Amino acid sequence: MINIAVLGYGTVGSGVVEVIGTNQDSINKKIEDELNIKYILDLRDFPGDPMESRIVHDYSVISSDDEVDIIVEVLGGVEPAYTFVKEALSKGKSVATSNKELVAAHGAELIALAKQNKVNFLFEASVGGGIPIIRPLNSSLTAENITEITGILNGTTNYILTKMTEDGSDFEDVLREAQEKGYAERNPEADVEGYDACRKIAILTSLACGKQVDYQDIYTEGITKISAADIRYAKAMKQSIKLLATMKKVGQNLFCMVCPMLIGQNHPLINVNDVFNGIFVHGNMLDDAMFYGRGAGKLPTASAVVADVIEAARHRHVSIKTYWSTEKKELTNIDESIHKYFVRLKKNIDETTVETVFGRVEMVKAQGISDEIAFVTPIMEEKDFKKAIAQFDSVLNYIRVAI
Amino acid sequence: MINIAVLGYGTVGSGVVEVIGTNQDSINKKIEDELNIKYILDLRDFPGDPMESRIVHDYSVISSDDEVDIIVEVLGGVEPAYTFVKEALSKGKSVATSNKELVAAHGAELIALAKQNKVNFLFEASVGGGIPIIRPLNSSLTAENITEITGILNGTTNYILTKMTEDGSDFEDVLREAQEKGYAERNPEADVEGYDACRKIAILTSLACGKQVDYQDIYTEGITKISAADIRYAKAMKQSIKLLATMKKVGQNLFCMVCPMLIGQNHPLINVNDVFNGIFVHGNMLDDAMFYGRGAGKLPTASAVVADVIEAARHRHVSIKTYWSTEKKELTNIDESIHKYFVRLKKNIDETTVETVFGRVEMVKAQGISDEIAFVTPIMEEKDFKKAIAQFDSVLNYIRVAI
Repeated sequence: MINIAVLGYGTVGSGVVEVIGTNQDSINKKIEDELNIKYILDLRDFPGDPMESRIVHDYSVISSDDEVDIIVEVLGGVEPAYTFVKEALSKGKSVATSNKELVAAHGAELIALAKQNKVNFLFEASVGGGIPIIRPLNSSLTAENITEITGILNGTTNYILTKMTEDGSDFEDVLREAQEKGYAERNPEADVEGYDACRKIAILTSLACGKQVDYQDIYTEGITKISAADIRYAKAMKQSIKLLATMKKVGQNLFCMVCPMLIGQNHPLINVNDVFNGIFVHGNMLDDAMFYGRGAGKLPTASAVVADVIEAARHRHVSIKTYWSTEKKELTNIDESIHKYFVRLKKNIDETTVETVFGRVEMVKAQGISDEIAFVTPIMEEKDFKKAIAQFDSVLNYIRVAI
Repeated sequence: MINIAVLGYGTVGSGVVEVIGTNQDSINKKIEDELNIKYILDLRDFPGDPMESRIVHDYSVISSDDEVDIIVEVLGGVEPAYTFVKEALSKGKSVATSNKELVAAHGAELIALAKQNKVNFLFEASVGGGIPIIRPLNSSLTAENITEITGILNGTTNYILTKMTEDGSDFEDVLREAQEKGYAERNPEADVEGYDACRKIAILTSLACGKQVDYQDIYTEGITKISAADIRYAKAMKQSIKLLATMKKVGQNLFCMVCPMLIGQNHPLINVNDVFNGIFVHGNMLDDAMFYGRGAGKLPTASAVVADVIEAARHRHVSIKTYWSTEKKELTNIDESIHKYFVRLKKNIDETTVETVFGRVEMVKAQGISDEIAFVTPIMEEKDFKKAIAQFDSVLNYIRVAI
């Protein structure tokens, strides 16, 4: 029998219990053993719940029980998860987590600690929910030099942008609706400001380059400034605005950023809508690949966590090699990166003035919008764009355009 | 040092050498050792080739060399690959192969033999070329009850159908052009008759259900009967014709088939064009996921083979668990499966006669096609459709419609 303890009986935690309950037979066949949920750690009691008898309030009951082989950490947030996970690994228990804050902040260190104790620290569910992406990067795309990862990694913002595009509504209205439907948190900051996507691309980039990429180093811009007018222009250009999390190797430079971007009909992520996530990967041998699915939600996320539990059960006393050392990887300042830029200026400045500053631009018109001008710049370095845009005091908004 | 031997210095074999040569540094970091190509087995000599000194003509040189840890089998075909691989596994060497004929015919047996010898038999490249799909099924989607896999698994036929759609040309013309460009073999039977896709879906279905699915049991229909007229009708319906390889669980039934199908704009594989492959997976917890990329080609396929070499190197003396036993899985006869059917009849039979036989149909018209009628049936069982269609002696073609 393989005993697990689930830390946190919230959405993902109860999903883990449901996945194991529903697919118990085939899971047991795959691990050639019986999987048993021995404890669930939560501050609350759950009277009447089928799992009531397994609820404990004190982590030391779990960590000191030698019969517990695998810890499922789905508490979210760095503490107390970090302390709990370190203790578990030190005591020879493997850990499966969906906690992107924890993995982004301490992934490399926890992988090393797991290795030292011949157990595993697994985190498939921390990026892309139910979409297999961590293990494919770590075990399948290993013969590649990965030169680009671009992902729609946050379901909430993708839902909001899709709705804004479909309904022509403004950000605030769609956010309110999403909150009512439970697609957005009451405090939506982590999603709409891009912090969630930032942690996820930090994790993917670390795995792609084998070193520690600190999420604090990643330029991050959310979607709060995207307006119905921006969406209308995007439609006029037959493009879509998506919150993209990107890492790109250009020569010796490694760029990493999270920001809304305009993408065209030929972009591999153009059809990733609603709460879905999509992750595009480019390797020097493989060329392009794409992974698509449900990037969030109780059961898809729990399915990825349980898959990690199965991997841990299949690798008892064998540490799965993970290419992610604690050595810090420096990112190149995005001032050196190149894009086109879609720009809206409030006043009716003539094209000639604009082109004096930006070079040859493509003017854009959208139905029903007047008293402003909009255009797309040529490809330019971010630092040159910043200098140029600073010359205008009437900037309504600008959005990077994928090239 | 980890020594490998490559069996077959053809397209994929030389790709394996190129991938290892190009990405040697990062590969060595990932295996924490040095990967060395000790032998290449080929009947030919390669004077002047940088690998010339490693060419051997006699397999016994390789199989009897205890320094060889991993065998790369990229010969294709069942024999002599089967004999070579069995010998390698028995002697404690892991095997990485791209050979779908071998895996479909003997996968379960070779996995068992590898386990017995505490080595690995890995075959990521046998399906989907560079797209990670075997390992995701075997290690990531393990908490799922997978109820559907539908794939565009053959790049050649997808290229032909895409070209027929773009140019309005007939099958034979596009095939000839594809052969000239090297996208189709001189003997194209395995691709265009669906045999290649059949072996691939047999492998995926075996992994999804954990038992042996014999490819000989899978109903297989190629694309040779698809005409420019069929494509014209598809366009009129805003649909596309794709060669789909499908496994579907419906209650206790397991259906598996390869055939051209009409799919609509909302189908997850609608944008998989040219030589690209796409694999759609539905699980009971995960809901929908999709994997997309280059399903063939020298470097993408070789990249998947080398990833398996890396896994084998990371798992020396540890057999990775694979959920695929030798127990045979019976498929349900597709007579019990349900579809809609697109039908073309030569004579101008009136709608009332057609509806007497098929029930309520949707008539379809395509510009420039007269002297025939075309319609889409309601959803019906294959066996009822066969009875119905047998009542007409003027059938031009029929194509199943995805529902």
